[in-house]
Amino acid sequence: MARTTGSDGERTEAAIRDAATALIARHGYEAMSMRQLAGEVGVQAAALYRYFPTKEDLLFSLMLEHMEALLTAWQEARPASTRPQVLLSAFVENHIAFHIARRHSTHVSNMELRSLSPERLTRILKLRTTYEKELRTILRDGAATDAFAADDIELTAMALIQMMTGVIVWFRPDERLSVAGVTETYLRMTMRLVGANEGREENHVHQHAEFRA
Amino acid sequence: MARTTGSDGERTEAAIRDAATALIARHGYEAMSMRQLAGEVGVQAAALYRYFPTKEDLLFSLMLEHMEALLTAWQEARPASTRPQVLLSAFVENHIAFHIARRHSTHVSNMELRSLSPERLTRILKLRTTYEKELRTILRDGAATDAFAADDIELTAMALIQMMTGVIVWFRPDERLSVAGVTETYLRMTMRLVGANEGREENHVHQHAEFRA
Repeated sequence: MARTTGSDGERTEAAIRDAATALIARHGYEAMSMRQLAGEVGVQAAALYRYFPTKEDLLFSLMLEHMEALLTAWQEARPASTRPQVLLSAFVENHIAFHIARRHSTHVSNMELRSLSPERLTRILKLRTTYEKELRTILRDGAATDAFAADDIELTAMALIQMMTGVIVWFRPDERLSVAGVTETYLRMTMRLVGANEGREENHVHQHAEFRA
Repeated sequence: MARTTGSDGERTEAAIRDAATALIARHGYEAMSMRQLAGEVGVQAAALYRYFPTKEDLLFSLMLEHMEALLTAWQEARPASTRPQVLLSAFVENHIAFHIARRHSTHVSNMELRSLSPERLTRILKLRTTYEKELRTILRDGAATDAFAADDIELTAMALIQMMTGVIVWFRPDERLSVAGVTETYLRMTMRLVGANEGREENHVHQHAEFRA
């Protein structure tokens, strides 16, 4: 997302990030040249290197920002409640909303891990683990209190994350469904997938959906 | 997968496909040159063009083969039964097994649709639709007969496909889990996600899993 406030330098950096994200999502990191990127932003190639000394610095910066923004978004969205179903619902809503709003950035983050140096890959993967751990903790607490069916927590977390992130592959908000509508259906599917126990906790999503397809 | 039988020409073509799949999965389609590919296979660049007149012909051929192989695998795996739970179990098993065995090819097929010409993209997307329709039909029949909870069939199909294909991102068969173990857990998650009705049909997967995480 373009940032419109800040100094000229900040605006240029934001423009570089936005253009790089779009170019990498479209053509792939290795296919993008710094010269091409400079042309897209409307600056000299030399100017780019003041912000990002190497092309990999730029890629790493995009991925770092993506993961930090995701963690921040979740910290802000996370409810005070300790009830697993409330926490899981909030997690699903935040995850889908974040990734739909950052489609290109998500593609870059998922496709270009291969292009990071080992140390940087490790840093990004640590942030991913931190994020995934939030979900695993919710699932584990839910299984421990019988709010959810006890199953393999790690596999359940991966399945949910991939199912939710996958929304950006096919979903375009101008189609038959709104973001809210998709999120509602995904909430129902998630609650069924984790075996959410309707009887014991009141649940703010509807478990029994109307027939729509 | 390398084919070891056939004429020299068939073996060369298979070697080109295998090397191209690995290179594209690693670096991206746009970053791969036909010269680099020829070097990898150990032939002159001119020899490549006898098999694939353009780089896009090669990409299209890889994607076509991937989708046709997936449809063939499903036709062969598809049980004679008309029971939705039996069909869905077989679909999940085949989908996971196929994609784990063809990890690179799956990455190419999912990441490089952007690089196909519009007509070729349409052909590949039609094959995808044909495949997804198989799953939607199973889900719809299941909902109609009350074997599954009635929910949005299209979203359920997309969620299941992305959850299952996502296995190849994190799963390596030499880790704590076998392909069979992962498949078993995914079968349970799938049956819960679709709200499979245990009471009405006996179900060949266990709905109540032991606590493992």
